[in-house]
Amino acid sequence: MPLPDDLSHSLQALLGTRFSVTQADRGHHAQSESFHSAPPPDAVVWPRTTEEVARIVAACADAGVPLVAWGAGTSLEGHALAYRGGVTLDLSQMDRVIEIRAPDMQVTVQPGVTREALNTELRATGLFFPVDPGANASLGGMASTRASGTTAVRYGTMRDNVLALQVVMADGRVIRTGTRAAKSSAGYDLTGLFVGAEGTLGIITELTLKLHGQPEEVASAVCAFETLDHAVECVSATIQSGIPMARIEFVDAATARAFNLHSGASLPEMPHLMVEFHGSPGSVREDATRFGEIAEDFGATGFDWATTPEDRARLWRMRHGAYHACLALRSGAKGVVTDVCVPMSELPAAVHAAAEDIAAAGLLGPIVGHVGDGNFHSLLLVDPDDKAEIAAAKEVARKMAERALSVGGTITGEHGIGVGKRDLMAAQHGDGWQVMGAIKQALDPQDILNPGKMLPDRN
Amino acid sequence: MPLPDDLSHSLQALLGTRFSVTQADRGHHAQSESFHSAPPPDAVVWPRTTEEVARIVAACADAGVPLVAWGAGTSLEGHALAYRGGVTLDLSQMDRVIEIRAPDMQVTVQPGVTREALNTELRATGLFFPVDPGANASLGGMASTRASGTTAVRYGTMRDNVLALQVVMADGRVIRTGTRAAKSSAGYDLTGLFVGAEGTLGIITELTLKLHGQPEEVASAVCAFETLDHAVECVSATIQSGIPMARIEFVDAATARAFNLHSGASLPEMPHLMVEFHGSPGSVREDATRFGEIAEDFGATGFDWATTPEDRARLWRMRHGAYHACLALRSGAKGVVTDVCVPMSELPAAVHAAAEDIAAAGLLGPIVGHVGDGNFHSLLLVDPDDKAEIAAAKEVARKMAERALSVGGTITGEHGIGVGKRDLMAAQHGDGWQVMGAIKQALDPQDILNPGKMLPDRN
Repeated sequence: MPLPDDLSHSLQALLGTRFSVTQADRGHHAQSESFHSAPPPDAVVWPRTTEEVARIVAACADAGVPLVAWGAGTSLEGHALAYRGGVTLDLSQMDRVIEIRAPDMQVTVQPGVTREALNTELRATGLFFPVDPGANASLGGMASTRASGTTAVRYGTMRDNVLALQVVMADGRVIRTGTRAAKSSAGYDLTGLFVGAEGTLGIITELTLKLHGQPEEVASAVCAFETLDHAVECVSATIQSGIPMARIEFVDAATARAFNLHSGASLPEMPHLMVEFHGSPGSVREDATRFGEIAEDFGATGFDWATTPEDRARLWRMRHGAYHACLALRSGAKGVVTDVCVPMSELPAAVHAAAEDIAAAGLLGPIVGHVGDGNFHSLLLVDPDDKAEIAAAKEVARKMAERALSVGGTITGEHGIGVGKRDLMAAQHGDGWQVMGAIKQALDPQDILNPGKMLPDRN
Repeated sequence: MPLPDDLSHSLQALLGTRFSVTQADRGHHAQSESFHSAPPPDAVVWPRTTEEVARIVAACADAGVPLVAWGAGTSLEGHALAYRGGVTLDLSQMDRVIEIRAPDMQVTVQPGVTREALNTELRATGLFFPVDPGANASLGGMASTRASGTTAVRYGTMRDNVLALQVVMADGRVIRTGTRAAKSSAGYDLTGLFVGAEGTLGIITELTLKLHGQPEEVASAVCAFETLDHAVECVSATIQSGIPMARIEFVDAATARAFNLHSGASLPEMPHLMVEFHGSPGSVREDATRFGEIAEDFGATGFDWATTPEDRARLWRMRHGAYHACLALRSGAKGVVTDVCVPMSELPAAVHAAAEDIAAAGLLGPIVGHVGDGNFHSLLLVDPDDKAEIAAAKEVARKMAERALSVGGTITGEHGIGVGKRDLMAAQHGDGWQVMGAIKQALDPQDILNPGKMLPDRN
């Protein structure tokens, strides 16, 4: 459905060639990293300033036309797809690092800056931004999905690393949330409300983030275990021992095979843990020794230490490439990617049960996980044209989520809700889901910000 | 104003003697730790279960009568006072530790459990709950004010240590927020919204908290500095060096004098830092040595190490008693207590300016602070019957807050808003304050939950 003429004209007048209704531009914004699909948006805009975003939102609000924010397009639950049409707000040209405040270990960025671009910019400061979901996502998108990843076990998630935001509200008003102080008790935590809101409450146009000192010493290793249970039980024991792991990642035997076939590795086709330690030379040595002792108790073998920065980069590039390496295990496959997160004591049983469900469904579904915080994923490989297979994969994902709920966990640790997990929200939150709906109704009465995602239907 | 008869009868039928309208019980709930005062509530109730709270709230909602939650009565900005009358919900009998889950380092408690009672209960587990605002506050109250205190620099604030809540909403519905997983991306962060909401959005009836391992080794020390500037600049340098301080507290010369007069200390009457290190024996030694070197650069003298648990307990009891020791510096005085929080690089100038303002106003106002996160307090000692003096103290507090805002900080790091800082909310949040008001309106349309606090007037 084309946009109303008035809206088209005003967006064109405001943005010139940064407003597009071409098939190519719209089609590009109908794509997703995962199996989710939707028709293209009616138009795409590329604002460069907060003021432009505010004027775009106000114009869409006047016309009652939906707006969907787009960062790097790497989300996994269909968050950025325009299921109800309208305008996709591509924020990739809002890519300025506005200010680095090294003494306060803070940076202010526009939302289109990617995490890799930020860390490149920070290289000379001795600081880095640790949150690392694998994909080179935009920081606005990472805030909006409350992203985390491999280092969250040590440095926290986006919830812990966003200090302040600038946000354009559904009526075009611009607000600032949070401050540059380390903590505040001044009213509702609006920053925390917008982080993880998936663009349904406002458009993030600026973020102030916490930075961390680059560790003096880093050590990484990979080791193999006889069984999945041994590997995951080793993780629980390690975390409970209090060793401050910087990363502790699980990959199963199928993923090890994918690394061998598609990432140039030569690992035994067994479950593995990939670990990293950050600290002073003394503390890293102590932590690594203690971890080695625990791992040995669980039968770990083939310890391979990455001693140079290049070796470490190769190791984590391989881990980050797991999704695409696993997709390549089956030609033409798309991934039904799902994640859950459970309390640490429940992790071994939850991973074990997921593996059994995948096998029982006759699916190929490698399991990997940021297991240090109880978070794991399965990448269920499906033929995108085979509806029965997609349904079987979704059923496995649903079982994983329900099992997570039954042991005190959550239906998603880091991927978010989007459209993919909306039908599980009532099971997780009960009446709390309606409370979320009431907040949405209060702040976006027309339901124009990323409609159809996450929230209950309006009455 | 007495309660409506119907409401009185139904509360009495529900609660028996745990419903009171006596002058004594009402008067007890009209008191505050600070200079704020209000008329007593019309009635006090002492529920014991979530279901009782839900029925009380539903009954008050039917009658349109305000409800104010009361924990331990230690808040400083008038949070728990019944400015608009109604029912005070004293949660002190909801004091059960419901479940300790040691392997997951979590505990679930009722809101009336105090932090000291919890830590006594945890003693045998090797775990502890670190958030420590000084006062023996209730955990529900600490969540509601987003409390922090001496250890926040290492372990975070209530924002970081509350995993899940049970909350009674303004219409009596009971919801659960959060999960026992370490992280979640499943929808709006309602837990984060209720933490710091000061009882204006719902009544917290259960909390699941993160616990931490008792450190293997602890070392505490106190040392003196020639000037306030030297002490505070030492803090900035220490934090920027990345030493993982467990505590780093500033007390000024007036506070040192108060400790000498009222806490049995014999400190030089100079500014001091009180520090603590947690870790392994090796890491504590390393951290303490590095801190000692930095402190020496700023001219620290008289290092006094507390080597036994008893000595350490005495040291921190003295620090926690600072408020009452300082009050005793002037007989009959009440405290206009205020706190602000600024970015670390702004801390030395902010503390210096506050000290100058206090001196210029001719007030006695000791300064102390959880300076490791940029948070400091002044305890302005006033004659409660001297309106001019109270006005002068409030003016100093206002200047401190405005200066904090002008350098990117917040008007309160941990005390909250209550009635005391409501008139500074617009300056801090701009239109964001109206966004808070819209959320309040959506979730408490009758404005019965702690009305008159924190939020903008209704239109």
